[in-house]
Amino acid sequence: MSDRIYNFSPGPATLPYDVLIQAAKDIVNFNDKGIGLIEMSHRSKEFIQVFDECEALLRELLSIPQNYKVLFLQGGASTQFAMVPMNLLGQGRTACYLNTGTWSKKAIKEAKLFGTVDVVFTSEHTNFDRVPSTGDYMIPAEAEYLYFVSNNTIFGTQFQSMPETDKVMVCDMSSDILSRRIDVSRFGLIFAGAQKNMGPAGCTVVIIREDLLDRAPENIPTMFRYKTHADKHSMFNTPPCFAIYAIGLVLKWLKNIGGVAAIEKMNQDKATLLYQAIDNSSFYKGHAQKDSRSLMNITFNLPTPDLEAKFVNEATAVSLDGLRGHRSVGGCRASIYNAFPREGVKKLVHFMEEFAKHNG
Amino acid sequence: MSDRIYNFSPGPATLPYDVLIQAAKDIVNFNDKGIGLIEMSHRSKEFIQVFDECEALLRELLSIPQNYKVLFLQGGASTQFAMVPMNLLGQGRTACYLNTGTWSKKAIKEAKLFGTVDVVFTSEHTNFDRVPSTGDYMIPAEAEYLYFVSNNTIFGTQFQSMPETDKVMVCDMSSDILSRRIDVSRFGLIFAGAQKNMGPAGCTVVIIREDLLDRAPENIPTMFRYKTHADKHSMFNTPPCFAIYAIGLVLKWLKNIGGVAAIEKMNQDKATLLYQAIDNSSFYKGHAQKDSRSLMNITFNLPTPDLEAKFVNEATAVSLDGLRGHRSVGGCRASIYNAFPREGVKKLVHFMEEFAKHNG
Repeated sequence: MSDRIYNFSPGPATLPYDVLIQAAKDIVNFNDKGIGLIEMSHRSKEFIQVFDECEALLRELLSIPQNYKVLFLQGGASTQFAMVPMNLLGQGRTACYLNTGTWSKKAIKEAKLFGTVDVVFTSEHTNFDRVPSTGDYMIPAEAEYLYFVSNNTIFGTQFQSMPETDKVMVCDMSSDILSRRIDVSRFGLIFAGAQKNMGPAGCTVVIIREDLLDRAPENIPTMFRYKTHADKHSMFNTPPCFAIYAIGLVLKWLKNIGGVAAIEKMNQDKATLLYQAIDNSSFYKGHAQKDSRSLMNITFNLPTPDLEAKFVNEATAVSLDGLRGHRSVGGCRASIYNAFPREGVKKLVHFMEEFAKHNG
Repeated sequence: MSDRIYNFSPGPATLPYDVLIQAAKDIVNFNDKGIGLIEMSHRSKEFIQVFDECEALLRELLSIPQNYKVLFLQGGASTQFAMVPMNLLGQGRTACYLNTGTWSKKAIKEAKLFGTVDVVFTSEHTNFDRVPSTGDYMIPAEAEYLYFVSNNTIFGTQFQSMPETDKVMVCDMSSDILSRRIDVSRFGLIFAGAQKNMGPAGCTVVIIREDLLDRAPENIPTMFRYKTHADKHSMFNTPPCFAIYAIGLVLKWLKNIGGVAAIEKMNQDKATLLYQAIDNSSFYKGHAQKDSRSLMNITFNLPTPDLEAKFVNEATAVSLDGLRGHRSVGGCRASIYNAFPREGVKKLVHFMEEFAKHNG
């Protein structure tokens, strides 16, 4: 373990080391059954137990009410951009979208194939440096749902409080699910790719209020209906077994360290360390407006692109990896999801101070 | 390894033991980089190399011509049932389907959402105990493509030679890809879920002739177009990294033991051992007609359901696992994909002989 790098990648991202060790064992010989986890039938009682434990832990950690189904799907959040309007919209009907970055833009594009899309807020003109407050937009009365992205990985912004509306709320929580307490009952549908806070790539979790399952028109394909998967407990076809298993391990780890309330405090603490390093220096400049700052992805720029490249290279050389910002923002980005260790953040802060001293 | 069971599961299925051992190492620390394989960014140069090697091996092993794209997608073969007609059919146009079992029936259902479906052959009235010969059906002149399933996992039937047509051929090869030599240039599109002959669940391989990429109508969602994934080398969004990595290991194993021609001989040899055990006994009765027998899934019945249950239980007790047949056929099914060892087949044959002796 001593040779582990600090991996600031925006996803797939750092996982708890104990999860990796356990997965390595089970892949070869699951529970000493003489069969590897990734060879087992998804209908075997062993795998059904893995699956049920994973769902039960997610329900417990997020206090998911009984009238919500939890689905473990494939295709990533990008597939949800289409599945949401396929299931919940319909020609001639309207949905309301908040445009806070690359992922909401992509979702808007797909929704337009299925109905009318009313984009009531955008921060594109300031390169998505903020998310709206509730007063910043009006939701049209005819909207079927309000769609938003709770955390914008690329720009480093996050809804510090969730929108207030009595409309059905649909939220892409790919990059901050399980990082802070949420009230699931305020949402109609939540979805999240696993590869940031939950596990490896290859599984998308959908949490959907049961009454929304029957909204889909008749003519949409079987695999793209939420009801198909809800009715079959996500086993209509072979699920992504390994990813679901690994999510279960990560959830167990999260429960053991105190659950969502505990990790929320740790995430606040880690992000504060980094934002203080930015704010205490005139060398670094945060991209996100202060009231929109993300606890997951900290985006910042240096005085020049040359210095940014030098920063990333020198950081990589001391095992601070994956800090290059997305091309839409440039600069640097430190992704510090749940499993990212505090020591790595402290090491980065120290590196930033030294780098500013020598290059400022 | 001595305590490994023989896993006759129809999928997810037995993988080569060396693949499991290698995966266990890389999951914790990939190539001694200080980062686990399932934590690495899919854009990292390490993962791009894993991905490129996997594709190159598949191209080499199947001699895939240059004018075909190889895609690594999610959603299983069930998603392809819809994606194929979404991309290749269109209202008012006709596709031709051969109905040889559960999976073709499901594919036919989805295709009907997108155009006219002409089912020119079915063996449903004899519980799908055979696949057609070329003379058994006529393909309508207006058909956009001929769709068939090369191996029917549930019923244990297989096209021993591929259909002859100058139409675009679309084939679901989920349960026999890489098990025998094929001429890819005779197909327009081949797809296969990984979890039988290629790797763990969670990835679907699509091999598509380039000229078919532009057929999709404008109004289908981005993620459901083959062109989206072809243009971005299957990295339009985060791919199922672990499954792709594991497929790469399986392909390397296959290449090392001599490639597809070598495994084809081994598969013939393994299946022959089992079919001889069936044919040499009046106790066991094969489900599939002889000229439609599968080399991958051997389906057979015993004189009574009680004896079948007893057979499965006693087999399980001696580590011959997963032999219960699908409820559509009843009886027993031995799935013996590429990685299933010959010793396991011999042990089963011996068990069958002993069981018949004591219960016949």
